[in-house]
Amino acid sequence: MNKIKIAAPATIANLVCGFDVLGLALNEPQDIMELAFSDVPGLRISHTDGYSLPVAPEKNVAGAALLALMEELSDPVGFDLTITKCIKPGSGLGSSAASSAGAVVAANILLDNRFSKTDLVRFAMNGEKVASGVKHADNIAPCIFGGVTLIRSILPLDIVQLNAPQLYVTVVHPQIEVKTSDARQILRKEVQLKSAIKQWGNIAGLVAGFMKADYALIGRSLEDVIIEPVRSILIPGFAEVKQRCTEAGALGGGISGSGPSIFMLNENKETAYVVETIMKDVYENLGIDYKTYVTTVNNHGVSIIS
Amino acid sequence: MNKIKIAAPATIANLVCGFDVLGLALNEPQDIMELAFSDVPGLRISHTDGYSLPVAPEKNVAGAALLALMEELSDPVGFDLTITKCIKPGSGLGSSAASSAGAVVAANILLDNRFSKTDLVRFAMNGEKVASGVKHADNIAPCIFGGVTLIRSILPLDIVQLNAPQLYVTVVHPQIEVKTSDARQILRKEVQLKSAIKQWGNIAGLVAGFMKADYALIGRSLEDVIIEPVRSILIPGFAEVKQRCTEAGALGGGISGSGPSIFMLNENKETAYVVETIMKDVYENLGIDYKTYVTTVNNHGVSIIS
Repeated sequence: MNKIKIAAPATIANLVCGFDVLGLALNEPQDIMELAFSDVPGLRISHTDGYSLPVAPEKNVAGAALLALMEELSDPVGFDLTITKCIKPGSGLGSSAASSAGAVVAANILLDNRFSKTDLVRFAMNGEKVASGVKHADNIAPCIFGGVTLIRSILPLDIVQLNAPQLYVTVVHPQIEVKTSDARQILRKEVQLKSAIKQWGNIAGLVAGFMKADYALIGRSLEDVIIEPVRSILIPGFAEVKQRCTEAGALGGGISGSGPSIFMLNENKETAYVVETIMKDVYENLGIDYKTYVTTVNNHGVSIIS
Repeated sequence: MNKIKIAAPATIANLVCGFDVLGLALNEPQDIMELAFSDVPGLRISHTDGYSLPVAPEKNVAGAALLALMEELSDPVGFDLTITKCIKPGSGLGSSAASSAGAVVAANILLDNRFSKTDLVRFAMNGEKVASGVKHADNIAPCIFGGVTLIRSILPLDIVQLNAPQLYVTVVHPQIEVKTSDARQILRKEVQLKSAIKQWGNIAGLVAGFMKADYALIGRSLEDVIIEPVRSILIPGFAEVKQRCTEAGALGGGISGSGPSIFMLNENKETAYVVETIMKDVYENLGIDYKTYVTTVNNHGVSIIS
């Protein structure tokens, strides 16, 4: 195989009570990437989208990830990478993770799968470093492994795949800017022990709910008493979206990544579309442009198109 | 049925990273209790052990639990309760919970199971209030439900039973006093957000490890970065027990309840006995009296003897 075309999914990190540790992959939106071997050693990147992202490999998130992979190859190789970005940067839907993860998964297939998935996460984290200054893995891991993933530890990297039942996910991306650095800065460095206990009771319940396929338990556990009360202030309409969607039957939800996208998990498709209508209504009324998705959990991660 | 004899198991609360929310029941030690209907309304308690615990119902933990149950009966009943305590009070092994839970489970069987298990937990929490001033459920719930239980929330009470694979549990009870109130007082009311994140990553890993029967994951997740570093100072020998036992192959462990008992979880029986030998050695060298148990997880909770 000399060239490959893949789809790299959007992901939701900071899954409610699972701040910094829980993420899941979505079936929509996805980035499209083509990677081809080249006789010329090194890496060349081009974009076919309108986002004017940097193409110098060390400044491009996919480039930084691929360079980390290429450093561990004994023989020099050449790659041409073409990126068609469909996940808007800054949406909170793991746009940089999709580029980073997609690039290294594509390279690994061309290289006859010589690296493990955990290796690929490690390489792709270099892309996250370029994007946000921090080597986090909570978007990368679900993008590569698919489904719901737990990053129990970053050093050493410990990724746990969690079974989950069928879930319909409704996402709204209000077209406002929330900088990851701002979202991080407004968090307090210390939290109340009693809030932390509530949070780890909830994440334990959420993991159990996923693995038992107990939707009611998932719903009861989708509560974040630490991050969301602070960060949601940065997202106009958040409280109304959340309240009306849960009243309409959504299991629960919260901020995707560090925002501004908001997601809701639903047991069935009908509710997911009702939730979408509510989200649209809220942002129409606020006069804020938005984009919505009604999708499902992506259980395979990055996939081969051709 | 006019009278009943039951066994109420010891329990481990504050299961490492599951402070205040995770507990498990043990097959040893167990309290023995006999409850009989009486024609004389009200409750009379006697002890056949040497602990000189109070027998006035409202001051006795089993009494307080039973009185809470009796309050919800429409017709007045009379009970005679005899307690043979085998779980030493103040051991950190859920002695008060065994009395409280055992009494209400016994009564419920005599009353043809008119209450749910969650009701029984609610009644038994009144016993915990007498014992420690706090209506906590993290010993009560595993004592009544058996196995590993999560108290996701106290108000409203939300108990989640977690499947777990076969585990051998080694316990050492050094015969020193650690008051629950002291153990609680030395905890800081605020914790670092980054420590809290590590803790909820670990509890998520532990729940997943139990449910997947993944012993290695259970072992990696048995880490408490918040409570244990503070409380273990109150227990001489703790650091040495933990280090030597994990080196000898135990999956991990920590302080049982608020101490002074220490427990280690093991994948196999042989390791559990090696761990016991190490525990004995540590306390022999320290010149502190101790008692050890090598047992397994009790998956049924309070059981009927006759």
